[in-house]
Amino acid sequence: MDAKTQSPEMPTVKHGMPEAAMKYRAYPTINIPDRTWPSKTITKAPIWCSVDLRDGNQSLVNPMGHDRKARMFKLLLDMGFKEIEVGFPSASQTDFDFARWCVEQGGVPEDVSMQVLVQCRPELITRTFEALEGAHQPIIHFYNSTSELQRRVVFAKDVAGIKQIAVDAAKMITDMAAKAGGGYRFQYSPESFTGTELDVALEICNAVIEVVKPTVDNKLIINLPSTVEMATPNIYADQIEWMCRNIDDRENIIISLHPHNDRGTGIAATELGLMAGADRVEGTLFGNGERTGNVDIVTLALNMFTQGVDPELDCSDIERIKAVYEYSNEMKIPERHPYVGELVYTAFSGSHQDAINKGMKAIRQANDPHWEVPYLPIDPRDVGRSYEAIIRINSQSGKGGIAYILQEDYGLNLPRNLQVEFREDIQRITDEEGVELPSKRIYDRFIERYVEQPGARLKFVDHHTYPAGSDHKGVRIVAAEITDRGEVKRIEGKGTGPIDGFINALSTYLGIDMSVADYSEHSLQHGSNASAIAYVEIEYPGGKLFGAGINTNIVAASLEAIVSAANRVLEERG
Amino acid sequence: MDAKTQSPEMPTVKHGMPEAAMKYRAYPTINIPDRTWPSKTITKAPIWCSVDLRDGNQSLVNPMGHDRKARMFKLLLDMGFKEIEVGFPSASQTDFDFARWCVEQGGVPEDVSMQVLVQCRPELITRTFEALEGAHQPIIHFYNSTSELQRRVVFAKDVAGIKQIAVDAAKMITDMAAKAGGGYRFQYSPESFTGTELDVALEICNAVIEVVKPTVDNKLIINLPSTVEMATPNIYADQIEWMCRNIDDRENIIISLHPHNDRGTGIAATELGLMAGADRVEGTLFGNGERTGNVDIVTLALNMFTQGVDPELDCSDIERIKAVYEYSNEMKIPERHPYVGELVYTAFSGSHQDAINKGMKAIRQANDPHWEVPYLPIDPRDVGRSYEAIIRINSQSGKGGIAYILQEDYGLNLPRNLQVEFREDIQRITDEEGVELPSKRIYDRFIERYVEQPGARLKFVDHHTYPAGSDHKGVRIVAAEITDRGEVKRIEGKGTGPIDGFINALSTYLGIDMSVADYSEHSLQHGSNASAIAYVEIEYPGGKLFGAGINTNIVAASLEAIVSAANRVLEERG
Repeated sequence: MDAKTQSPEMPTVKHGMPEAAMKYRAYPTINIPDRTWPSKTITKAPIWCSVDLRDGNQSLVNPMGHDRKARMFKLLLDMGFKEIEVGFPSASQTDFDFARWCVEQGGVPEDVSMQVLVQCRPELITRTFEALEGAHQPIIHFYNSTSELQRRVVFAKDVAGIKQIAVDAAKMITDMAAKAGGGYRFQYSPESFTGTELDVALEICNAVIEVVKPTVDNKLIINLPSTVEMATPNIYADQIEWMCRNIDDRENIIISLHPHNDRGTGIAATELGLMAGADRVEGTLFGNGERTGNVDIVTLALNMFTQGVDPELDCSDIERIKAVYEYSNEMKIPERHPYVGELVYTAFSGSHQDAINKGMKAIRQANDPHWEVPYLPIDPRDVGRSYEAIIRINSQSGKGGIAYILQEDYGLNLPRNLQVEFREDIQRITDEEGVELPSKRIYDRFIERYVEQPGARLKFVDHHTYPAGSDHKGVRIVAAEITDRGEVKRIEGKGTGPIDGFINALSTYLGIDMSVADYSEHSLQHGSNASAIAYVEIEYPGGKLFGAGINTNIVAASLEAIVSAANRVLEERG
Repeated sequence: MDAKTQSPEMPTVKHGMPEAAMKYRAYPTINIPDRTWPSKTITKAPIWCSVDLRDGNQSLVNPMGHDRKARMFKLLLDMGFKEIEVGFPSASQTDFDFARWCVEQGGVPEDVSMQVLVQCRPELITRTFEALEGAHQPIIHFYNSTSELQRRVVFAKDVAGIKQIAVDAAKMITDMAAKAGGGYRFQYSPESFTGTELDVALEICNAVIEVVKPTVDNKLIINLPSTVEMATPNIYADQIEWMCRNIDDRENIIISLHPHNDRGTGIAATELGLMAGADRVEGTLFGNGERTGNVDIVTLALNMFTQGVDPELDCSDIERIKAVYEYSNEMKIPERHPYVGELVYTAFSGSHQDAINKGMKAIRQANDPHWEVPYLPIDPRDVGRSYEAIIRINSQSGKGGIAYILQEDYGLNLPRNLQVEFREDIQRITDEEGVELPSKRIYDRFIERYVEQPGARLKFVDHHTYPAGSDHKGVRIVAAEITDRGEVKRIEGKGTGPIDGFINALSTYLGIDMSVADYSEHSLQHGSNASAIAYVEIEYPGGKLFGAGINTNIVAASLEAIVSAANRVLEERG
């Protein structure tokens, strides 16, 4: 970080990276001008398949051991996944052992299919069948890379050769499954699909379909992975729509998406791919996976949820999902991760806080069951989060945020002008300190400044009121005891009620012409002994100022508030 | 995390969140069947505007103080941003002071415009002009919220009332700018655009355009924020295409995008929005910002870069950008963040490692300047990252990864069969330990097992060769000294060369019929004194095994390799 060592007057501006860009080529577009997906919407959940235990696991710095895997597996079952890829059992002993544990002790319900990955190689296929012995309707997921680049630099084979690998594996797998008496499901992936010419991918998939001969009762899953995300997400949607249109035996095929996130658009690619006709999505919780990750299934599900579509996955306790994710993967979910990040239900900005505050009030008053609060696309309670952290106070915050916090956390309903007045005080502090103020500190500051006022000149002690006499109908006299710099003083005034009488008494005593500009009072939900808090705004020759008082007696609270305001007036006048 | 307390046999499966979903409504689609954006591609960089110092800053737990802001500002200038929103100077003293610092000491080049945000309120507008006094071509960015929800619950105004707010502000701002002698640029945002009916947004924008009267030399920026991301990204593109078609005076308008990322599709929405006709993008580095963040400009720029489009932003030192980001924002960039995350240039899986290894070799041999390596959409060197971390070894890794690491870090080119043999050894360790093995540990294990062999029975000491005599043309005799359990032994054998002769000598000595199945040797780039390393595969009645030897003498190295292999044969036979 050399920001400091260079002179700010002479920035070393480089205009982009034009030469280096020339070594990259634009991804080709798909010729499908009559595409229909841009006018579609997602109206139902796809079949979800979690690959947390395979694609997710293989990309961890420290892959999961048995305990971490078992906890993740349990969570996936609890969330309602019906298809779970549990590993690559022919590739490592850990994965083999875990597949056996799932079969023997994993408690896999009848309606859930375990899925395992295997390359198109005979010895690995044999080992895979061993790993699955006794499993209920498991999915054997076989794949080979079909991309032009891998054909050329990795396998040195032409299309026919690559197709033969897939066809041979399909034959061996279907034969072994038949010999074992059936009960197996099948999935084929032309790996690196997004690097494969569409007609080549189609030719290979169709050759596999011809061997597997899927039926309506045992459909073949054709999984079209964006193994590496290489283009804008509309291109993936075009590819999916093209494949859905052209693949053989479409009614017996489940078209599956397996997007990665190299360009940060994996969620979009999946959504557009579903609009383009796909039936199924493979992904991981919160998008763990190779490099930039697989597509994030939780975000996909909650995106559907906020459009009124049942996601058919239980994300209602997102904090538990997060906790198991972080334990099992040893990865931390970033603060801004959609729906779950620590800061995503938080607003610091003044105008946002104000709008959220008003939106929350409106929704409490409305009869409409629909959720609509500015800046909050989802009700945090629907995923087990609370409102508490929605509004947090820093130097960018406004009165709305401060008011919201005092109301939510301490039950104080500050009048609007008091919000404005107190906001200035808080902003001075946040500007000076440059840090976030916790809710407690804001409350303490309010109490110190408006209620307790340590060191203030006046204190309210007691009062009583009595009628002014039969010739002064409706007029009452307020006799009160206050202290002035510690000395007890008795003051008296007339008025229509105790507030009126007291302000007159205090005006006379202090020699300052004060009147009440605003008054409100409410009981305190939080705090002791059903106290009330009164807020009184006093107008005086120099302006207006608020005071507040807390007392179990509502009259005493309001008179305390007047004394509090008077102390602030005295302070202003110096 | 209650995974442990529930019985795995009885998972508490809940089938989604169907009732809660009913409180949400689907976002309406846009009626634009003749949309053109799905057939477009991005062919040039947009105008970039960084809002790191405003939208980014206002969402931080601890907003930046002066030093953190100044470092960020310097970085943004260095990267080549021409428009930088520096704050909301009328809303906080910190922001005001920073705007003044930018004008007076910030070293803003002539071709860069500072931008500041302001609400449509007279006292704030006046203060904003004070903050900008003396700035060169600054952009005054005024906004008001126009969404149906905010009109109703926050402002209690109809469309005409909301439009009037914008028009009044536009008048005041253009008047003040004219009085100040010009030199100002203008930007208007119908805030919460994605919550605003399209025709309402259009009406308000057109009313502002009518007041501002933009020209070709001073275009008006109309910024259409996805203040909250509320729908799939194709909808935002539809909205942008519709606005581009229908807005007044299009040629004098710069259409700007300001996407947020609530659904995790902010990057996609921006890309599709650019395809739909937008000219400009507001966003932040790595997507910091309110809630789930603003759109990530670095990822957008590098997405363009990998398609051969000059992004006109310098991201070639991504580690510096990351360091300043983390210092200034006090946020950490997650491991899987596109292009910059710690793990995104890393492959743990065996098949990926193998393919990358082969792809790297192919690219070194090819004459084609284009980048093409499986699983790596960008050359890490183009953003200042190195290959070193590309391949890391855990229990999911294969021979390709191990071979790559030994070659990259230690200059060892293991023959293919030795890769397979050694991979099994490493996998045993990773399966047992369940953790990632660092490169050094793999190298040390190789040297221990194949070269140094502590505790092995035989050691090579020395050799010499001489012709077998005139009647044995081409035959040479190898006389060698070895130790066997510490005792010096002299052995002798005949052959066409030293290897041949030595293996014969050793076979006779040990009484085991051994022959050489594979031999290779190369100099060591790394390591001392230009040593060579020899790899020899020996065939013996029980199979084949490798040995290796390192020596400055190439013959000695190969004979050491034979002794090494022989030791492993002896060990195998017990």
